[in-house]
Amino acid sequence: MRILGVDPGTRVVGYGLVDCSDAGFVYVECGVIRLAETDPMPTRLLTLAGELAAIIGEHAPAELALETAFHGVNASSALKLGQARGAVMLVAAQHGLAVAEYAPALIKRAVVGHGRATKQEVQTRIALLCRLSREPASDAADALALALCHAQLGRTGRRPA
Amino acid sequence: MRILGVDPGTRVVGYGLVDCSDAGFVYVECGVIRLAETDPMPTRLLTLAGELAAIIGEHAPAELALETAFHGVNASSALKLGQARGAVMLVAAQHGLAVAEYAPALIKRAVVGHGRATKQEVQTRIALLCRLSREPASDAADALALALCHAQLGRTGRRPA
Repeated sequence: MRILGVDPGTRVVGYGLVDCSDAGFVYVECGVIRLAETDPMPTRLLTLAGELAAIIGEHAPAELALETAFHGVNASSALKLGQARGAVMLVAAQHGLAVAEYAPALIKRAVVGHGRATKQEVQTRIALLCRLSREPASDAADALALALCHAQLGRTGRRPA
Repeated sequence: MRILGVDPGTRVVGYGLVDCSDAGFVYVECGVIRLAETDPMPTRLLTLAGELAAIIGEHAPAELALETAFHGVNASSALKLGQARGAVMLVAAQHGLAVAEYAPALIKRAVVGHGRATKQEVQTRIALLCRLSREPASDAADALALALCHAQLGRTGRRPA
């Protein structure tokens, strides 16, 4: 089964794809979608939705994984992140992809082995696990970590409101 | 010019349409889209996007008006509201509608005459201004208030990031 992890933001959106089976997992691709800060939010979301739809069209993932909460984020930032997240969820639903959500600590524990891993530790560990010759960008590494977490835990039914 | 006001939520989404010209404005329609609380968020957003696209398809508004901030809302609620808002913005952009945003106090001032109007005052005033025989539901009234505010102020260019 192919899994797409997405780490949404209002400027950079990371994505990562892995194929998983009982035998383990295989890295497929990762990258970032960049949204122009000079664009109004609806235009940014349109770009995000278009790029994400293209990735889904090209790689045909079966499920999509997202990070749950944004701890330590204020209401204004949460609103903006929610907007990007809403666009990702909508595109997933429009393409018939089940959406799974995981808490940040759970993702880090699944990938690095403990819940307080730094961004650098996640990048290093992801490069090792995916056998990448270079460390991916932080947002792409986070998205791959999400995909790997979902490959391990497979909690598609778990979708907090 | 036809304006669509939208008041997004994760359970109820209000909408209201008015035609405006130099001569004033004419009420077109208002209502609410209900989202099933038992549905996971991506499915709710899919319902919201589908209903909103149908309303846009039927009434062909030129612009869409949204409320800006959610004052006094915590990060968790802001994230959820942001998701609904992101879906609305994306549908607007997909249909080529310009999106305008107005602060709650500005909307109340434009419709009721002062920025601290209660929900009931908005409902009563909207029924009067739109010559409705009955007061609309609160969320529909808020959406009509947004559309009327935009009809008066026409700030399409004003889109906070």
